[in-house]
Amino acid sequence: MSLIENVVQFRVRYSETDQMGTFYNSRVLEWFECGRTELMRKMGLPYTAMEAKGVFLPLVEAHVEYLGRARYDDLLEMTASANLEGRARLRCQVRITHAANGPAVARGYTIHAFTNRDGKPVRPPAWFIEALYSHLAP
Amino acid sequence: MSLIENVVQFRVRYSETDQMGTFYNSRVLEWFECGRTELMRKMGLPYTAMEAKGVFLPLVEAHVEYLGRARYDDLLEMTASANLEGRARLRCQVRITHAANGPAVARGYTIHAFTNRDGKPVRPPAWFIEALYSHLAP
Amino acid sequence: MSLIENVVQFRVRYSETDQMGTFYNSRVLEWFECGRTELMRKMGLPYTAMEAKGVFLPLVEAHVEYLGRARYDDLLEMTASANLEGRARLRCQVRITHAANGPAVARGYTIHAFTNRDGKPVRPPAWFIEALYSHLAP
Amino acid sequence: MSLIENVVQFRVRYSETDQMGTFYNSRVLEWFECGRTELMRKMGLPYTAMEAKGVFLPLVEAHVEYLGRARYDDLLEMTASANLEGRARLRCQVRITHAANGPAVARGYTIHAFTNRDGKPVRPPAWFIEALYSHLAP
Repeated sequence: MSLIENVVQFRVRYSETDQMGTFYNSRVLEWFECGRTELMRKMGLPYTAMEAKGVFLPLVEAHVEYLGRARYDDLLEMTASANLEGRARLRCQVRITHAANGPAVARGYTIHAFTNRDGKPVRPPAWFIEALYSHLAP
Repeated sequence: MSLIENVVQFRVRYSETDQMGTFYNSRVLEWFECGRTELMRKMGLPYTAMEAKGVFLPLVEAHVEYLGRARYDDLLEMTASANLEGRARLRCQVRITHAANGPAVARGYTIHAFTNRDGKPVRPPAWFIEALYSHLAP
Repeated sequence: MSLIENVVQFRVRYSETDQMGTFYNSRVLEWFECGRTELMRKMGLPYTAMEAKGVFLPLVEAHVEYLGRARYDDLLEMTASANLEGRARLRCQVRITHAANGPAVARGYTIHAFTNRDGKPVRPPAWFIEALYSHLAP
Repeated sequence: MSLIENVVQFRVRYSETDQMGTFYNSRVLEWFECGRTELMRKMGLPYTAMEAKGVFLPLVEAHVEYLGRARYDDLLEMTASANLEGRARLRCQVRITHAANGPAVARGYTIHAFTNRDGKPVRPPAWFIEALYSHLAP
C-alpha cells in the first residue's frame, strides 16, 4: 500500500549549526515538524485546522538516525509520509537528503497520540482517516 | 535609587554554539529570559504566579550589545535588574560576563508591556509594584 | 539613496511558538539571519562565499521592536536591506509583516563587524562594497 | 555491572515551551546534551577536554519517549549514564522526571561515534575507557 507522501526543500540556517560545523542534532526534530506540517497541508487538513477542531497530535516517541553532514546554507530535501499505527497512533516517517537526491543526511520517525486540548486520548476522527487515505480511492 | 538585582551563573550549552565556535546571537535573548525568571523569583513573585493571576509581560523591545566571545561549557554570570518605565512598561537590564567578574560577553535590555491573557494592555498591578520596590522600604 | 533590498516569505514553525501562543521573542533574530542570507545571495555574494574568503560578519549589536502577534503556520513576509555604517560596520535593517503587506509583526536591525576567522577586525573588502552598491551603478 | 551515573536538576525555560503549553519535543535532545556534559565532567573528562585532544562524539542515533508533561519553570531531574556499545560506539541513557522522583517526563538514549576533527572514525581512546569504567575499580 502506498502512503501519502510530500517533499519539501529547505536550507540549513546558521542558527542551526553548532561548533562542529554541521547542524545541531536536535534540529532534525524541528525539520521533521516542518515535514509533517506540509504533508498535512497536502492532505487538505492543515494542522492549524485540526487544532481548531480540538484534535492535537502530541509526540509519544521520536527516533532519528544521523547519516551525513549538512552545512549552513546547504539545500536539503525532506520526504515525509504518514500512516495510522494500531488503533490510535499516527506514525510519520521522514528522510532528509541533500537536494536533489544527494547524499543522505538523516532519517527517522515520530509517533503521535490523538488527544483533545487537555491531553486526554481521543480516537482518530473519521475525517482525519479519510484525508489520510483519500489518495488511495479508486 | 538602587534597583532590585539578581545574579545567576550558567554554562553555555553545545546547542547554543554555532559554526563560528561561539554562542549564536539569538541565544542571548533566551539567557535574558532566565535572568528575568530568577529576578522575579527573588522578588517573591515568580512569573508563573503572575500568569496565574492573568498578568503577562510580552516583550515590546529588545536590545543586545555583543561584547565578547563565550564558548561551549564556559561558565557565565548574568546580572539582571528591573524598574518601571513610564506608566505601563517594565524595563529589564541585563549584563553577562565570564564568571567571576571575567571579560564582558553581552549586555542589553528588554522592555515589556503589562497585558491580560488576550494581549490587551493593563496597568501594572499594585502587588507587582510593591514586590519590585519592597527592597527599598526603610 | 536607495539600499539594496530583498523580500522573502516564510511560515512560523510550531517549534518557534511559546506558551503565549505566539512566536518566542528570540526567534526574530533567527529570522533576521534568514533575511540577511537571502539578501546576500541577491547581492551575488552568498555568506558561505564570504566565509570561504575568510571574512566574517559577527553581530556587535541587535535591536528588535515587537509590533504584533504571529501564530503557528502564519505566512510572514520579511524585507531586509543593508548599508555600510561608518568605516567598518554593516547595518542590516529588517521588517516583518503578515503576508502580503499585512499587519506589522516586528522590525529592527543588526550591526556587524568585519573580522577574519580569528575574530580580528578587518576593513570591508572592496568586492563586498562593490556587491553592496552595484545596483546603484548607472 | 553498574554504569557510571550522574543526576542534575534544571528548570524548563519559557523559550522551551510551545503553544501546547508544555516543552517542545526537540528540547529533550538539548537536555540530553546537558546530561552528557555533566556526566563527563563527573568522569573527570569534560567534553571540552576531549575535543581539545581531537576526539569528537557526534550522534549517530537518538531515541526519545515522551512520558508526561512539564511546564515553564517546572523543576526537573535528569539522570544520565553511559557505556560502550560494540567496539566503537558510546551509548548514553537518560531519563527525566519531575523533581524529586516525581512523575516521568521523558526517557531515551543517544548513540555516538568516536571521530577525529574531520569526522573520520577512530577507536575509543584508552584514557576514555579508563575514565568511563574507573568507578568499577576494586
